[in-house]
Amino acid sequence: MARSDQGRPATFALSRLAAAVGGEVLGDGKVQVRNLRTLEHAAEDDLSFFSQAAYRVQAEVSAAAALLVPPSMVELAGEGRQRPLLVVEDPSLALVELIPLFHPPPPPPRGIHGTAVVGKDCAIDDSAYLGPYVVVGDGCRIAAGAALHAHVVLGNACRVGVGSVIHPHAVLYDGTRLGDAVIVHSGAILGADGFGYATHQGKHLKVPQVGRTVIEDEVEIGANSTIDRALLEETHIGQGSKIDNLVQVGHNVTLGRGCILCGQAGIAGSTQLDDYVVLGGQAGAGGHITLGRGVQVAAKSAVLQSVAEGLRVGGIPAIDLKDWRRQAMMMPRLGEMARRLRSLETKLASLAKNAGDDD
Amino acid sequence: MARSDQGRPATFALSRLAAAVGGEVLGDGKVQVRNLRTLEHAAEDDLSFFSQAAYRVQAEVSAAAALLVPPSMVELAGEGRQRPLLVVEDPSLALVELIPLFHPPPPPPRGIHGTAVVGKDCAIDDSAYLGPYVVVGDGCRIAAGAALHAHVVLGNACRVGVGSVIHPHAVLYDGTRLGDAVIVHSGAILGADGFGYATHQGKHLKVPQVGRTVIEDEVEIGANSTIDRALLEETHIGQGSKIDNLVQVGHNVTLGRGCILCGQAGIAGSTQLDDYVVLGGQAGAGGHITLGRGVQVAAKSAVLQSVAEGLRVGGIPAIDLKDWRRQAMMMPRLGEMARRLRSLETKLASLAKNAGDDD
Amino acid sequence: MARSDQGRPATFALSRLAAAVGGEVLGDGKVQVRNLRTLEHAAEDDLSFFSQAAYRVQAEVSAAAALLVPPSMVELAGEGRQRPLLVVEDPSLALVELIPLFHPPPPPPRGIHGTAVVGKDCAIDDSAYLGPYVVVGDGCRIAAGAALHAHVVLGNACRVGVGSVIHPHAVLYDGTRLGDAVIVHSGAILGADGFGYATHQGKHLKVPQVGRTVIEDEVEIGANSTIDRALLEETHIGQGSKIDNLVQVGHNVTLGRGCILCGQAGIAGSTQLDDYVVLGGQAGAGGHITLGRGVQVAAKSAVLQSVAEGLRVGGIPAIDLKDWRRQAMMMPRLGEMARRLRSLETKLASLAKNAGDDD
Repeated sequence: MARSDQGRPATFALSRLAAAVGGEVLGDGKVQVRNLRTLEHAAEDDLSFFSQAAYRVQAEVSAAAALLVPPSMVELAGEGRQRPLLVVEDPSLALVELIPLFHPPPPPPRGIHGTAVVGKDCAIDDSAYLGPYVVVGDGCRIAAGAALHAHVVLGNACRVGVGSVIHPHAVLYDGTRLGDAVIVHSGAILGADGFGYATHQGKHLKVPQVGRTVIEDEVEIGANSTIDRALLEETHIGQGSKIDNLVQVGHNVTLGRGCILCGQAGIAGSTQLDDYVVLGGQAGAGGHITLGRGVQVAAKSAVLQSVAEGLRVGGIPAIDLKDWRRQAMMMPRLGEMARRLRSLETKLASLAKNAGDDD
Repeated sequence: MARSDQGRPATFALSRLAAAVGGEVLGDGKVQVRNLRTLEHAAEDDLSFFSQAAYRVQAEVSAAAALLVPPSMVELAGEGRQRPLLVVEDPSLALVELIPLFHPPPPPPRGIHGTAVVGKDCAIDDSAYLGPYVVVGDGCRIAAGAALHAHVVLGNACRVGVGSVIHPHAVLYDGTRLGDAVIVHSGAILGADGFGYATHQGKHLKVPQVGRTVIEDEVEIGANSTIDRALLEETHIGQGSKIDNLVQVGHNVTLGRGCILCGQAGIAGSTQLDDYVVLGGQAGAGGHITLGRGVQVAAKSAVLQSVAEGLRVGGIPAIDLKDWRRQAMMMPRLGEMARRLRSLETKLASLAKNAGDDD
Repeated sequence: MARSDQGRPATFALSRLAAAVGGEVLGDGKVQVRNLRTLEHAAEDDLSFFSQAAYRVQAEVSAAAALLVPPSMVELAGEGRQRPLLVVEDPSLALVELIPLFHPPPPPPRGIHGTAVVGKDCAIDDSAYLGPYVVVGDGCRIAAGAALHAHVVLGNACRVGVGSVIHPHAVLYDGTRLGDAVIVHSGAILGADGFGYATHQGKHLKVPQVGRTVIEDEVEIGANSTIDRALLEETHIGQGSKIDNLVQVGHNVTLGRGCILCGQAGIAGSTQLDDYVVLGGQAGAGGHITLGRGVQVAAKSAVLQSVAEGLRVGGIPAIDLKDWRRQAMMMPRLGEMARRLRSLETKLASLAKNAGDDD
């Protein structure tokens, strides 16, 4: 997580950056930039970026020496004043390449801190890192380049794949498995018991949860999120899925590849998400349903029934997104509709009376 | 949390399992099963379970040697092929008994790890367990068979009852009391300050929170849930209540017995839940209200007023559940209603004009 | 967090308490009170408080020796029986002064526990406290009177201001800065990576998050809340803002002074809150919007567009609060409206037919 400014050139020529990201320079490619900053914070020797028309004024008044823009913003970016532009198809993608140039990541930590407590029969690669006060249970396997930062706790029989990083205070209960290049942020709890009880004579009896939680390669899990173990088999997070902070994933849930769960979203037990499903912030999915490939659920919505591939839904309960938006626009007109209804009734009654038809 | 397969027979006769759960075998009771698995994962020598008609196809194609079913599923379960059935009134209840047969729980840990830091004047039973890096404040009492796993922190004057289990990284602030057989999952925070301020001249002044959090016997608290201490007295969770992950319980709240709070539910300050109240996932209850015995709040709903005993409510703000469902079905028809209203107005105006009545 | 009853007088004269809070006694100021309790729990020698008419019955039957009341409650408080009253403009404000009299806070802890692990080049004031198993990275500065309780983890280059308190198990990622008199509750995670990816050929590529999280003076952050670091600059929480439990603040968000975020509220990335904005419990704010000074968002609502200064909004998506309340009252009438619409259509058709006008 630390970033160091050491070991990088003091400045970069814009043309050099363009080459790094496969972009094109409009204007002077020899301009030197010192840092990458937001429009608001950029100084006269900084590069900034501008990709949404909504930030047009900020772009115009920004002191930045040059701007990273998509083709669609070239015109707007050039309006106020002449400034070299670095044009790329996808500025976000360019940032993935540019940020490490300006902020080289620190070398990965190595070694086992003297205070780490490691159980029996563990296989820990020599290039792995165990920070202060890490506790690892029996029978765990920790692969090359993996880093368990301070206070991480692993139960028994956990596996951590190559290059995976677990930030301070995350917990993996017994049997949890992480693939390669997984990132688990602080306070995330993987593999806690699913929420299952059998109610008998007024008592909620705990149904033992003896499955596990499995996280595939390249998954990232946000701070304080929770992914429960399955009742018997696996709660499964598919490759490359990204989970934000404070997200709850219930027992037996499966996520396909490339799913995105935004902050505070929640998924009830035994629900299945196919590949590339997106849940917006604070959205929820009920239990025992299926969301097809590419389904998108609007923020704050609640999906209570299965949704077919490719659909976008919103609302509580969630319906087709366009219908929901239309509905939301109708809502404020309800009072007016009620008044018009009343007025119609009065008029019709009067008309009927005049017509001698008092039915 | 660990489960071991050692020390159990390699297989169980179905009749032996039926005896264990008070069920009845339809078909060959001598069939031997090796494990208990889901319909999808069961191999040819496994027992599985089938209790919802929605999983009918999965049941039909499952390789399972036998199925645990409720009486209502006997017919469906027998359809595809002949297979012995273990029939019980409540399959969930049977799982409570069966799972430990297949996955015997490990013996409870004992002893105080050398790295545990214990304060003054504590009374810790000889059969209790304090894991690595546990920190216990002054004047705490920890009863027989209680287990504080790695990195658990107790403030001063806490009490942990007989056989209670606190998973890694949970925190009990000063004065928190747990009854017997309580389970607290990782990252749960009990007894943090309630959210109370007096705003004076533009400053939010902290109202000191000097009460505590009290958890009765047999309560389970999910990962990363938070239960604040009271202002002066007690935030109180009644016996046998079950709280899922990421749930927020505000200061001065009281829960009766057997309440169920699903994932990401929240309760604002000073609200009282009588016995057996259920909050669905992501549901919320406002402050200073009372939910009567057995009230059920639908997922994603917000109760803002007190609700009488036995009612089921839903919506934001929550109303009678049936009314809310009806309402939700009406919503998509709003656009059509508006069009019909406009059409009526036009027709009525035309009719009135023709009738020589231009009022 | 601990409170001690030692070192305070056994009882206080009501007149002495009135002097402490600038209030007025109605009745016998010489009455001695032993403790401050709620109406329900107060014994015959306790002071209690009564400030909402809804608690009138509880006030009447309370055994309390005296009541703290605002002017508006004097009449109600006097109804049932004669009891000395301590009248103050703002009882909550009086509690800020009174509670420490009855429950004197313990002296702040000092010193560095032998198990604390401190990195290179740190500056830790002699009057600061580092509890058991605290881990502090390189280059951190911890000011006078600051307290890092058990298991707190600081990354590199963090700063903690004068008198700030960090409760057990909170984590500050690299570069996080806390001002003076900040309180961070257990399990809060400050400075974890913002949620940002560039999707390319079916892969969500991580956009490195190299900014930081900055918390100004007198902020309080609840248990298990998460405040992400910025992409490049700062996620910024303004002076005196108060954040409840399980709140999510996305990257690049800025809060002004004195904002209040209630339990489980969430703010998506790059959104700006001006001073004194209030988000109710479980409310959400979308990304890249601005909420003007004093905006109030009702519990469970979702603001998806910028809101001008001083407005109160509610609903999903949020609209003017009064409009939303009106709307919510109309909703249950939808079914009835549909029936009346149908009835009008029938009547009009019949009338038109009778009028010989079958259009």
